[in-house]
Amino acid sequence: MAGNTFGTYFRITTWGESHGKALGVVIDGCPAGLSLCEADIQAFLDRRKPGQTRYATPRKEADEVNILSGVFEGRTTGTPICLMVPNTSQRSGDYSEIASYYRPGHADYTFDAKYGFRDYRGGGRSSGRETIGRVAAGAVASLILKELGISICAYTKSIGPVSISMDRFQPELLGQTPTGMPDAESSAQAEAYLEECMQNHNSAGGVVECVVDGVPAGIGEPVFDKLDACLAKAIMSVGAVKAVEIGDGCSVSTAAGTENNDAFYMENGQIAKKTNHAGGILGGISDGSRIVLRAHIKPTPSVFSEQETVNKNGEDILIHIKGRHDPVIVPRAVVVVESMTALTLVDLLFAGMPSRMDGIKKFYGK
Amino acid sequence: MAGNTFGTYFRITTWGESHGKALGVVIDGCPAGLSLCEADIQAFLDRRKPGQTRYATPRKEADEVNILSGVFEGRTTGTPICLMVPNTSQRSGDYSEIASYYRPGHADYTFDAKYGFRDYRGGGRSSGRETIGRVAAGAVASLILKELGISICAYTKSIGPVSISMDRFQPELLGQTPTGMPDAESSAQAEAYLEECMQNHNSAGGVVECVVDGVPAGIGEPVFDKLDACLAKAIMSVGAVKAVEIGDGCSVSTAAGTENNDAFYMENGQIAKKTNHAGGILGGISDGSRIVLRAHIKPTPSVFSEQETVNKNGEDILIHIKGRHDPVIVPRAVVVVESMTALTLVDLLFAGMPSRMDGIKKFYGK
Amino acid sequence: MAGNTFGTYFRITTWGESHGKALGVVIDGCPAGLSLCEADIQAFLDRRKPGQTRYATPRKEADEVNILSGVFEGRTTGTPICLMVPNTSQRSGDYSEIASYYRPGHADYTFDAKYGFRDYRGGGRSSGRETIGRVAAGAVASLILKELGISICAYTKSIGPVSISMDRFQPELLGQTPTGMPDAESSAQAEAYLEECMQNHNSAGGVVECVVDGVPAGIGEPVFDKLDACLAKAIMSVGAVKAVEIGDGCSVSTAAGTENNDAFYMENGQIAKKTNHAGGILGGISDGSRIVLRAHIKPTPSVFSEQETVNKNGEDILIHIKGRHDPVIVPRAVVVVESMTALTLVDLLFAGMPSRMDGIKKFYGK
Amino acid sequence: MAGNTFGTYFRITTWGESHGKALGVVIDGCPAGLSLCEADIQAFLDRRKPGQTRYATPRKEADEVNILSGVFEGRTTGTPICLMVPNTSQRSGDYSEIASYYRPGHADYTFDAKYGFRDYRGGGRSSGRETIGRVAAGAVASLILKELGISICAYTKSIGPVSISMDRFQPELLGQTPTGMPDAESSAQAEAYLEECMQNHNSAGGVVECVVDGVPAGIGEPVFDKLDACLAKAIMSVGAVKAVEIGDGCSVSTAAGTENNDAFYMENGQIAKKTNHAGGILGGISDGSRIVLRAHIKPTPSVFSEQETVNKNGEDILIHIKGRHDPVIVPRAVVVVESMTALTLVDLLFAGMPSRMDGIKKFYGK
Repeated sequence: MAGNTFGTYFRITTWGESHGKALGVVIDGCPAGLSLCEADIQAFLDRRKPGQTRYATPRKEADEVNILSGVFEGRTTGTPICLMVPNTSQRSGDYSEIASYYRPGHADYTFDAKYGFRDYRGGGRSSGRETIGRVAAGAVASLILKELGISICAYTKSIGPVSISMDRFQPELLGQTPTGMPDAESSAQAEAYLEECMQNHNSAGGVVECVVDGVPAGIGEPVFDKLDACLAKAIMSVGAVKAVEIGDGCSVSTAAGTENNDAFYMENGQIAKKTNHAGGILGGISDGSRIVLRAHIKPTPSVFSEQETVNKNGEDILIHIKGRHDPVIVPRAVVVVESMTALTLVDLLFAGMPSRMDGIKKFYGK
Repeated sequence: MAGNTFGTYFRITTWGESHGKALGVVIDGCPAGLSLCEADIQAFLDRRKPGQTRYATPRKEADEVNILSGVFEGRTTGTPICLMVPNTSQRSGDYSEIASYYRPGHADYTFDAKYGFRDYRGGGRSSGRETIGRVAAGAVASLILKELGISICAYTKSIGPVSISMDRFQPELLGQTPTGMPDAESSAQAEAYLEECMQNHNSAGGVVECVVDGVPAGIGEPVFDKLDACLAKAIMSVGAVKAVEIGDGCSVSTAAGTENNDAFYMENGQIAKKTNHAGGILGGISDGSRIVLRAHIKPTPSVFSEQETVNKNGEDILIHIKGRHDPVIVPRAVVVVESMTALTLVDLLFAGMPSRMDGIKKFYGK
Repeated sequence: MAGNTFGTYFRITTWGESHGKALGVVIDGCPAGLSLCEADIQAFLDRRKPGQTRYATPRKEADEVNILSGVFEGRTTGTPICLMVPNTSQRSGDYSEIASYYRPGHADYTFDAKYGFRDYRGGGRSSGRETIGRVAAGAVASLILKELGISICAYTKSIGPVSISMDRFQPELLGQTPTGMPDAESSAQAEAYLEECMQNHNSAGGVVECVVDGVPAGIGEPVFDKLDACLAKAIMSVGAVKAVEIGDGCSVSTAAGTENNDAFYMENGQIAKKTNHAGGILGGISDGSRIVLRAHIKPTPSVFSEQETVNKNGEDILIHIKGRHDPVIVPRAVVVVESMTALTLVDLLFAGMPSRMDGIKKFYGK
Repeated sequence: MAGNTFGTYFRITTWGESHGKALGVVIDGCPAGLSLCEADIQAFLDRRKPGQTRYATPRKEADEVNILSGVFEGRTTGTPICLMVPNTSQRSGDYSEIASYYRPGHADYTFDAKYGFRDYRGGGRSSGRETIGRVAAGAVASLILKELGISICAYTKSIGPVSISMDRFQPELLGQTPTGMPDAESSAQAEAYLEECMQNHNSAGGVVECVVDGVPAGIGEPVFDKLDACLAKAIMSVGAVKAVEIGDGCSVSTAAGTENNDAFYMENGQIAKKTNHAGGILGGISDGSRIVLRAHIKPTPSVFSEQETVNKNGEDILIHIKGRHDPVIVPRAVVVVESMTALTLVDLLFAGMPSRMDGIKKFYGK
């Protein structure tokens, strides 16, 4: 089935394999009149580009984006925007061995089970490079949000056992540390932890947190296309994510009702909340306060230790994975989580336009 | 926008408010030839029916299902199945007060923000009664899964601070304890905790776990309609759920790669896994092992303590909620989580049929 | 697959069989705040009700609509609207014979081929009664259009060889003649033709034309969800329709380019067209002028002459259809074509709201 | 809204403007294991390529296709297939004049009305070059149909007043005449008519007919996603099509029921029909006989005669269109109609797989 499309009104379809000719995305439903150039998108792609720190694969990929359609004289035309990133660093040879066996923690086996065979080069479609299309589209979604006064910010909340302290949160460090942590002290600790992982031929996971300010109350479409439900799908669809939390998330299950309820009060003539355990969403609809979500990301499955597995002949074997792999993918996943959040919000902002008869009449001048 | 539909190939659309004439669901895409009668569905609905334990609202609702279409001579015809449950216990008077203010933790404010007004009786569409349509459809999905040799089982994993022990898991207690816990000792502890909550005019949350056996490897549609992504949306769309975990869930973020990878090995000529940290899903596709997910559910927001909030005139007020409310909704949510899981699986099982050219040719006799 | 849903933003799902308990529709995506009561819908349903003229089946069906959800205190709430029409005149006995053979021109054989068996009573889901859900939803769509200053009008253009003359078009006769023709002279001729058909145990077809005024320029979503493409699907999905024309339709194929082009000119400061061969649609987008379409409807397949066919045992047989059948369905199809047109327009009007960045910013107050 | 996607199971999204960097399509839902190479697609594209006859624009466009993803070692992988055709012959200068006014019969005005501005070069997205994506995807769909024993054949049925005679139908002439007519005598007459049109600075329309053999009975999803409804949308979405007919089409409206019904009979143990007025579709479902449809295509709106229109300043003006334009687009539309038919059929063949419980069980080995 067709499963590579996300969104209904602002709809993206991503395509491309790790070692194919190119990867990219088609954005359908982007409104006309948005200023857009390649540099806008490149800035986002550069945030996920490998080879920038010690903790990311040393592959050098230019990952340069081309706008193939949908933009004319610097503005979107309302027609589909095709964004393409050619693949340039394809050392297929490195991967030939994995054609014959199933790496633990990877999708090799499940792709074979589903499709009968797979493009094994660099993981093919299940590679982290698949996120290029998501991030390129996320850049466009973020520009739309900006026009609507909405700002998104994602960062590494934890790597392995090391969590940032919200007291030490330094906005100016966003995107500046090799760990993605906006807290210099925690970031240094996390780096030490990663060094240890690398020495042990091991890998680490972590948590990405994303906060969104400026979303008006009323966004989300109950009962299935709720804002939190759509965000959960968006975030869980990112490879390696195994849990998604909204607001207080898992900890609500042990809280008492009196603690967990957020009291409303009036502030400057506006309805506000004294706390935000709900993470900005009530009944699947935004309540006007900050939206907060977290993605829990597993450790990179490509570890350099010896592992047990089976090959395509159905034999138990021992393997040693080679190649170029990130000891942790969390820092590079930050912009992916931010992109998926942006894409979800734009789709639901558009979806919400025909919610009320009075708004529709006004829109059409009646 | 239209947000009340779930699924693409096995597609349900739920409708109805807490105190309207009826609630129900239309199932479109149910294959022809499935044996189906009202008793099959009633059995599921009875599992979510209120008034059965001390820890559920004492409202007495018959919640009797009618099959209005799509079934002929005891079998589904392939045409839409409309299931209707008339509302019979509608004490609207109890709710008239809430028309004027916004209950903390409820969707009163966000519905008003979105739609301009709301059916305030019993929470209207944001009531837990909305799940009637989900569960009725879930009953049908479960019958389909059964025909395919797939079994689902959900249960309460924890209430407040009390968690079941997997060592004491008693399958014969499934659905038999007032807490939904299949562990007599933990269930008794949880009951004691709930008594305390009730005395304190407070409420409790908890965790529902769902496990699925028999799903063949290969189900799920990367990269957005992954099995885990679709499950996350399905489960997060249930009111009061604030986090969803797959397999080891949140704990993967602190695990090392060597621990978290599940080694493959051959068992009786089949590929198997030594562990199941992944919860049966790799790269968004089922791997043939047990699927495991958890939903974290917040405490019932309707607590009988005094609460601060605002009214529709924009005034800060104190309120005391009355009416009939569950001190914990976790036990009644078990069948809802199970239903949403079943609905997701059937949709993706159908979606997966045209994945391979050889399978399609065989299906069409070529 | 699920094929009983029409529309994306304003989405209807119809359900029900000719002789089941009830038929109906769920409307999802109806904006909040529209005044709606059962009488609004009943007026539309009464236009398709049988038993009203000599040329419609003498079955007496009350076809009374119930609003089961989505309306509170006389206004839509933004939640799904379930409309139900109970079946009351179910003489199943009349149809028992057709269980064993395939009526020519009907869907008996194709339903069996697809689903393995069928609800044969009155044609089951392939009965003309299926249109009840379409018309009930069409009534709601028409109310929305009215609020936006858009008016739809459909009528019988021809029955068999008798066509109305546009010179004699009498708006006050709309819906007043037994033929659905707003031209007294042609209607009388068509009645004479139908009498002849009935005497010959035969049946007639015809053409329904639908015109829409007040649609703003800019509606339709190229390149696949064009306004004309969506209308074509909507109209062709009505049972018995075998051709759909937009504007000059088939006759464009023999026209010269200079004839067929509609010249633009300025009229009172607005762009207007000197002719309307295009039927109000250019490049799949409304151009602000009158939208014109036609549906070509086949003669009722249930004729009372002897017919050759086969039975389920694979034997050639001769049959004589009994029961209550319309000698022509065109007059009753008028409101169905009008409904499908209304549903398509509302969906695309809503779809068009997020087309331009400036419109979105203004909508969200930025 | 996003309107550039066609299909649900086999889903294509086209992108690109006439004078942008490239045009193309992403195919999502193509099953794994189909043999596919660029030559397969090029063969289809060459059938729509301009510059091949006197009656097509003399622009020379290579229109060479690149497969950017979804194919590995000569077979489809089940992941999205992105096909790109770079634009090489972009004489934008020719079109600069049309930026300021609205050509009659074109989408210039409606695109401006919808989006606020447009890529005016060569018609931008409303150019006939948009069909490149449709045809490239149609080539893939046709390969799938071939594997299932289904063959499609489209041809020019008429140009202006000249229609082919089915008695003189010469299959070996398919695609061999400059008119697309598989009848040498009619083709010569049509050429004479086109010469006359060109001398008069005028243009011609015509009819494309498409027939499909080998579709099993049972394809189509009532009541909205009927086979004929989906075909009608597919065909009407092609620029310049103003009417769609199935089987006898418009002429059913004047036929008598006894004539129009197709009698069933047994032939070699199979159910067959003595006639095929229905065009192979009953109740929206294929009946196993030949599917027949026709598209009525308007004359090219770019005529070289003087025309009245308005400019963007709201002034009445006279224009003389220059540039390179086809005097008739019917011959080049043949492969587009064939492609849209193939795309619709593949989508519905896949959609039909989960129609019956017994088929699903067998598919999953239960």
